[in-house]
Amino acid sequence: MSRKLEKGFIQLYTGNGKGKTTAAIGQAVRAAGYGLKTYIVQFMKEYPYNELNSLKNLSDWITIEQVCKDDFVFRKEKPPQEEIDKADNALIKAKDKMCSGSYDIIILDEVFVSIYFGLLKTDTILEFINGKPENAELILTGRYAPQEIIDQADLVTEMKEIKHYYTKGVLARRGIES
Amino acid sequence: MSRKLEKGFIQLYTGNGKGKTTAAIGQAVRAAGYGLKTYIVQFMKEYPYNELNSLKNLSDWITIEQVCKDDFVFRKEKPPQEEIDKADNALIKAKDKMCSGSYDIIILDEVFVSIYFGLLKTDTILEFINGKPENAELILTGRYAPQEIIDQADLVTEMKEIKHYYTKGVLARRGIES
Repeated sequence: MSRKLEKGFIQLYTGNGKGKTTAAIGQAVRAAGYGLKTYIVQFMKEYPYNELNSLKNLSDWITIEQVCKDDFVFRKEKPPQEEIDKADNALIKAKDKMCSGSYDIIILDEVFVSIYFGLLKTDTILEFINGKPENAELILTGRYAPQEIIDQADLVTEMKEIKHYYTKGVLARRGIES
Repeated sequence: MSRKLEKGFIQLYTGNGKGKTTAAIGQAVRAAGYGLKTYIVQFMKEYPYNELNSLKNLSDWITIEQVCKDDFVFRKEKPPQEEIDKADNALIKAKDKMCSGSYDIIILDEVFVSIYFGLLKTDTILEFINGKPENAELILTGRYAPQEIIDQADLVTEMKEIKHYYTKGVLARRGIES
């Protein structure tokens, strides 16, 4: 059964701890169970994030698009113009999904990291927020959320790392971290 | 395709912010996409959490059980013995799933709230942790994590509420908060 939100808010998950992307994914899964449709854009997360495989089973409710590589970060370079254009186009597409009413929840995953590394501009996201229809929920995730965007959000959670096994030398594990 | 974890850790999500349960659910969904099986016990969360509906689509990978009501809290009473027994039995069952190797990840959702309200004992959970096989991942969530359990965890994230729309008088919304 398909339903609609009465009123949508802006949720923001930031901080250096684990759980930002998984919280957003879990939120989409919960919403799907109620009959709400979610459109997810994952920035800088091409392959091999395994949520992609699972969400195929919920494709009536959840659409997920991955956009932009993150290899320029590892090369310690500015993002190539081609990637900046891709990020902007992904936002235009997401805005269309949000405004057309075909989706109830829009998730921009790792949007703040994308701003931090120069793929997107804070102003572009503020404009995106500004265009949010009353009954759409917007979820933004990533480290380094700019204060101007925090100011616009209704719900802000900081995932704060208290203890992490990375400090014990454990590497990211497939199926867990990606 | 079914896979196994090489080494499992203890993840803990606590704090007063939103995203603890959804992070655990999202983790299970991601893990399923990689071929890992998850067994979830949700304490004090009977109906109408909508993740239940969605996870049916991933039932080859994710099993979810809900146990114990939370109405005694609202009545400001101690938990009835019947509910304490249910909680203990749910743990015994979860331990069996964890130790048999039929599941790679065990999630005890809202386990800390259950300790806080007297449904479970800290010692019982420490014992549970102690019985974790090397290759099982254990994820514990809920406000009020006791320090003794934090000490045993490998990864601890505090979901810290920075801003919440509850303070604006917004009530919990179906499909979003439940």
